[in-house]
Parts: sequence; structure tokens; C-alpha cells
Amino acid sequence: MSHTQKNKTQLLARVRRLKGQLEAVERQLEAEAPCAEVLNLVASIRGAANGLTLELIEGHMQEHVISPLSPGNETSAAGAEELMSVIRRYLK
Amino acid sequence: MSHTQKNKTQLLARVRRLKGQLEAVERQLEAEAPCAEVLNLVASIRGAANGLTLELIEGHMQEHVISPLSPGNETSAAGAEELMSVIRRYLK
Amino acid sequence: MSHTQKNKTQLLARVRRLKGQLEAVERQLEAEAPCAEVLNLVASIRGAANGLTLELIEGHMQEHVISPLSPGNETSAAGAEELMSVIRRYLK
Amino acid sequence: MSHTQKNKTQLLARVRRLKGQLEAVERQLEAEAPCAEVLNLVASIRGAANGLTLELIEGHMQEHVISPLSPGNETSAAGAEELMSVIRRYLK
Repeated sequence: MSHTQKNKTQLLARVRRLKGQLEAVERQLEAEAPCAEVLNLVASIRGAANGLTLELIEGHMQEHVISPLSPGNETSAAGAEELMSVIRRYLK
Repeated sequence: MSHTQKNKTQLLARVRRLKGQLEAVERQLEAEAPCAEVLNLVASIRGAANGLTLELIEGHMQEHVISPLSPGNETSAAGAEELMSVIRRYLK
Repeated sequence: MSHTQKNKTQLLARVRRLKGQLEAVERQLEAEAPCAEVLNLVASIRGAANGLTLELIEGHMQEHVISPLSPGNETSAAGAEELMSVIRRYLK
Repeated sequence: MSHTQKNKTQLLARVRRLKGQLEAVERQLEAEAPCAEVLNLVASIRGAANGLTLELIEGHMQEHVISPLSPGNETSAAGAEELMSVIRRYLK
């Protein structure tokens, strides 16, 4: 079972939260809210999208790279972990 | 009238396109699509969110910084334009 | 006097720190250090470059947009401040 | 031999180019150049740093994750390739 299935509930919750934030932007634009408010809401969306991306990448690395390794491939597992620690810094 | 009002139709179109992309991610997750597809769709969302942010920032600079300037404030207008050219590079 | 002159010492200190980090990467590559170490050092450089950019943008907005405003241009000053608060979120 | 050794010449060239760009920023600050020029040069540094990071990540994935795989670990190799295609989009 893929990580997008295993973490389906959690991932869907993230996607729906992001959609909710976009709907708030939509309502602000329709209500002609002060644009500084719109800008700040849009800035939060970026953080939320990075969080979703990081969760997908972590899951992908775990399920499609690390977990399928046959015994004796510890070097690859260690290399993948090292890479994740750098990617995390870029998406946080 | 604020830029978010003047460009309301165009901004709403961008927000709705982004929402449509998120709904596609939602459907992929529900249909348990290959996670590489989900990851690629999520990467496009980031580009679209940057595009929305840039449009809002450009509008904000134009309407709330440059347009309200009284005559004789050409230095500030030029400074704002220079800044926009750098910000564009960061969000493209 | 421009902000790059007024903050010259502080900006030069930032640039030299960044250069020092790059020289450390250079030495690591020459000494054939473990590449996970190189990757982590390069990730810090990105944070330092964002910090330098933010300081330059803040200075530019202050000195070339806000300070030259003639009296009565409070709207533009407020608009510029609002924009800075969003830009800060993107470069932190 | 690690990828940072195999690509040592090319990586060192990238690092030295970046250092050269920082030295140009240093000279601009010392000569009190127009800050819009400084800002634009600093924006190029970000692109160059992303390019260096991407080259290091690609090399790491190839040498420390994919190459050490024993036969029969094609699933992990494919998963790693899929991940690289997304990471490339983020650092380009």
C-alpha cells in the first residue's frame, strides 16, 4: 500500500485545509477586503503548500525508496535519510 | 478603488484555478493515484501560488504606493519600480 | 546617503560571512569531505543569502521609497510598510 | 569514489563562480554602487546557489542511493528517479 493511501486521511485533511484557505481568499476578493489582508492570507497558503509537498516527499522516499530495499542495502537507506534531512530544511 | 477590486475578475480566476488544482489533488488521493502524479500536481500548485502572490504584490505596489504619490515624488516611484524588478525575479 | 552606504559595515559583514561559508565548501570539496556535510553547509548558505537580500530590500524600501516622500504621502508610506511585512514572510 | 570527488572540478568551478559573485557584491558595496545594482547581483547569487544545491542533491541520490543498490532493487531506483524529477522543479 502506497504512502498516499496509508496517510490518505492526513493528506486529505491538509489538502482540504489548503482549499479552505483559498476559499477564504475568494470570499475576501468578492467582499473587496483590504488587499494587505489578502496578501497575508496568500502568504500562509505558501507555507501550507510547502508542508503538503514535504509530507508527500517524505512518504515517497520512505515507501518507494527505503521500504522496498532488500536486506544489505543499508548504504542506500542511509543515503536517502541524509537527503531527506536536507530537503526538510528547504521546505520548512 | 483598490487593485484587488479593479483586477477582481482576473484574481478570482487565478484563485479558482488554484482551487481546481487542489480539487484534482483531492480526487487523486481519493482514487489512490500513483503518488508521483500527486507530487507533480502539487509542484504546479506552488508555481500558481507564486503567480497569484506576484500579481497581488504588483497591484499593491502600484495602487497603494505608486499611484497615491503627489507630484514631485518621482524618486519614490523609481525606487518602487526598482524593487518590483527584484521581487519579480524571486517569484518567477 | 544610500542605505547601502549607511549600513555598509553590516552589509559587508554579511557578504564576508557568506564568502567564508563558500570557502568552507571549497575546502570540504578539496578535502573530499562526506557529501552530506557539504549539502548541509550549502543549505545554510541559502538562508544567509536570503538574509542579505531581505536586508537590502528593507533598506531600499526605507531609503528610496519611504524616506524621500514629501509630507502628505502617508498612504504610500503605509502601503510600503504593508508590503514589507509580506516580503519578510517570504525571505525568512 | 563519491560524486563530490568525481564531479570535484565542476563543483569547485560552481563554488568559485559563486564566490566571485559575492566578491563583486563586496566591491559594489565598497564603491557605494547604486543599491538596485547590488540587489540584482544578489538575486543572481540565489539562482547560482540553487544550481549548486541541485547538482549536489542529484549526485547524492545517484551515488549514495541508486548506485549502491544490489540487483533486484529496481523499485527503489524508480522511486528515487521520480523524486528527483520533483526536486528539480523546486530548485530550477
